[in-house]
Amino acid sequence: MYRKIQITVIGDSLEFEENNKVAYEVGKFIAENGWVLITGGREGVMNACSKGAIENKGIVVAILPDEDLNLGTPYKTISIASGIGYARNSINVLSADIVVAIGGGSGTLSEIAYAWAYKKTIIAYEGCEGWSKKLANTTLDIRRKDPIIGAKNIKELKDILKSEVQKILESKRLAN
Amino acid sequence: MYRKIQITVIGDSLEFEENNKVAYEVGKFIAENGWVLITGGREGVMNACSKGAIENKGIVVAILPDEDLNLGTPYKTISIASGIGYARNSINVLSADIVVAIGGGSGTLSEIAYAWAYKKTIIAYEGCEGWSKKLANTTLDIRRKDPIIGAKNIKELKDILKSEVQKILESKRLAN
Amino acid sequence: MYRKIQITVIGDSLEFEENNKVAYEVGKFIAENGWVLITGGREGVMNACSKGAIENKGIVVAILPDEDLNLGTPYKTISIASGIGYARNSINVLSADIVVAIGGGSGTLSEIAYAWAYKKTIIAYEGCEGWSKKLANTTLDIRRKDPIIGAKNIKELKDILKSEVQKILESKRLAN
Amino acid sequence: MYRKIQITVIGDSLEFEENNKVAYEVGKFIAENGWVLITGGREGVMNACSKGAIENKGIVVAILPDEDLNLGTPYKTISIASGIGYARNSINVLSADIVVAIGGGSGTLSEIAYAWAYKKTIIAYEGCEGWSKKLANTTLDIRRKDPIIGAKNIKELKDILKSEVQKILESKRLAN
Repeated sequence: MYRKIQITVIGDSLEFEENNKVAYEVGKFIAENGWVLITGGREGVMNACSKGAIENKGIVVAILPDEDLNLGTPYKTISIASGIGYARNSINVLSADIVVAIGGGSGTLSEIAYAWAYKKTIIAYEGCEGWSKKLANTTLDIRRKDPIIGAKNIKELKDILKSEVQKILESKRLAN
Repeated sequence: MYRKIQITVIGDSLEFEENNKVAYEVGKFIAENGWVLITGGREGVMNACSKGAIENKGIVVAILPDEDLNLGTPYKTISIASGIGYARNSINVLSADIVVAIGGGSGTLSEIAYAWAYKKTIIAYEGCEGWSKKLANTTLDIRRKDPIIGAKNIKELKDILKSEVQKILESKRLAN
Repeated sequence: MYRKIQITVIGDSLEFEENNKVAYEVGKFIAENGWVLITGGREGVMNACSKGAIENKGIVVAILPDEDLNLGTPYKTISIASGIGYARNSINVLSADIVVAIGGGSGTLSEIAYAWAYKKTIIAYEGCEGWSKKLANTTLDIRRKDPIIGAKNIKELKDILKSEVQKILESKRLAN
Repeated sequence: MYRKIQITVIGDSLEFEENNKVAYEVGKFIAENGWVLITGGREGVMNACSKGAIENKGIVVAILPDEDLNLGTPYKTISIASGIGYARNSINVLSADIVVAIGGGSGTLSEIAYAWAYKKTIIAYEGCEGWSKKLANTTLDIRRKDPIIGAKNIKELKDILKSEVQKILESKRLAN
């Protein structure tokens, strides 16, 4: 397979220093591992995470709500101009092997809900306020038994991410 | 204006007798008031609510995830075959003057989150299990101050719905 | 079945007096027959056709590209605020039992192409300039043998429309 | 800017040996120039072009209609699982700096129509049957004066592509 492992990182478009710092570290980690980072391409966590990946030679895909591929974060290798507004939240998580949530408001909540419905592995950071903390270690409905995986700190988040990617590789869905 | 007031009702596609009973009553009430009912066109709450409206001479619009307009609930006047899968959840709530949530799993959660982001008035039924009960009387993020409006029983839900429609009509956005 | 026959009318959003006159007549005819009119909800043919239907007590659905359900033609019973931009062209034709094209530029061309791919019956008016005239009585690719049905004038268009609706009703997909 | 030049190649999903051969060469050329190739991720021209790019160390993005990111051509670096069916045709061309059409049926026709409406530079290969040949050197409506650029053979197509990319780079929208 030529396709790389794809990690979608979701979180608030508002700027919270702490969340952005975590997001930068996660983006850096994704790049260092040779995975592709996907985000919604906007401000806040999306921008910070993309910066972390780009500054560490990663490939970053921004899936914008807009029709103009030159909008959004400058830290992107590839710009997908969906033109479908926030309906693109569905695409962000469908395109993920694994979804990582860092904080987040209502937009992030819609993405966590979609990720759950689409049976995606979801890792939720518990170290900052927002929906990732509220929903960590819970189930959203009776359709799945496996909870959203909580990560108490960055180290734990990295360990879980690495281990979950390993599971996917071993499941032969990808041969690396 | 020729456009009618449009009420989107959201809830679980799984069949829960209690939720469906409430949904039927709400659909009936919407029809009796001459409003248009919009749903996602599938099973459970969507089907029951549509049945309540159709059996009381209402106009019902089903916004299906599917490409085939003949799928989904038979209780519909008009079938919108979106063909965009669950990204249609965004359309369901964008097309609403008011959103009513009755129970609900992860799909409903994505719709409540969208409705919040789109600044829609949301009425959440508290009388049965699911996301409508969990999120009633809360705010989803700092972008809005007005909480999701909880309704403890069917009577209260009807009163709130009538009163919220009145506010919209008075705001002159529609002249009925 | 409660669902009504749904006719989607497509054509230019620019204002051409002749096209709009034809569109008004077609909208009127759709309303008189008790079918639902679906359009993209904007100016030109969409608006004129919707006016023809509304002024003759028809039900009109406007599927807007926008997020705001109060935009677009005022001549609509129901407003679907897709929020997905021109990707909604796909929904316009998927939601049709029959597609009628009156003139049209590149937007209409995308809809004719979709209607073909989705195996929809397409009636193309030949009496005014645009893609409906250019593609009448042709096939778009090798996937179908049946050509786009040309209609030389309004009378012929009405006759064909009535006859094609009859075929659908007889095929038992709908029981009226 | 970190974003790379993005070329979307469109064409038939049916397998035509000649079209596929051209598509492979175009994919190779895109890769050799360090541009990103975007396709709809399916069979025929999309697959052949992606193969040409991947086998020459290019980055290939497949924007699938499907919900499953493991479907479609194996020749892709990144898989965007849009889940929105053929409404994704709009995204394919919105995400392009330049659109290249090689043959094509009704699906390709919808993409050419969208590309025109979105003011994209369109290069249409004239050397094989299909919509690219039919529409080369024509205008689709009165909204634009510049015609779809015809390319008589692969050499000409490459020259035009290089020259059009140069114009984009010089227009400072991208700094390479």
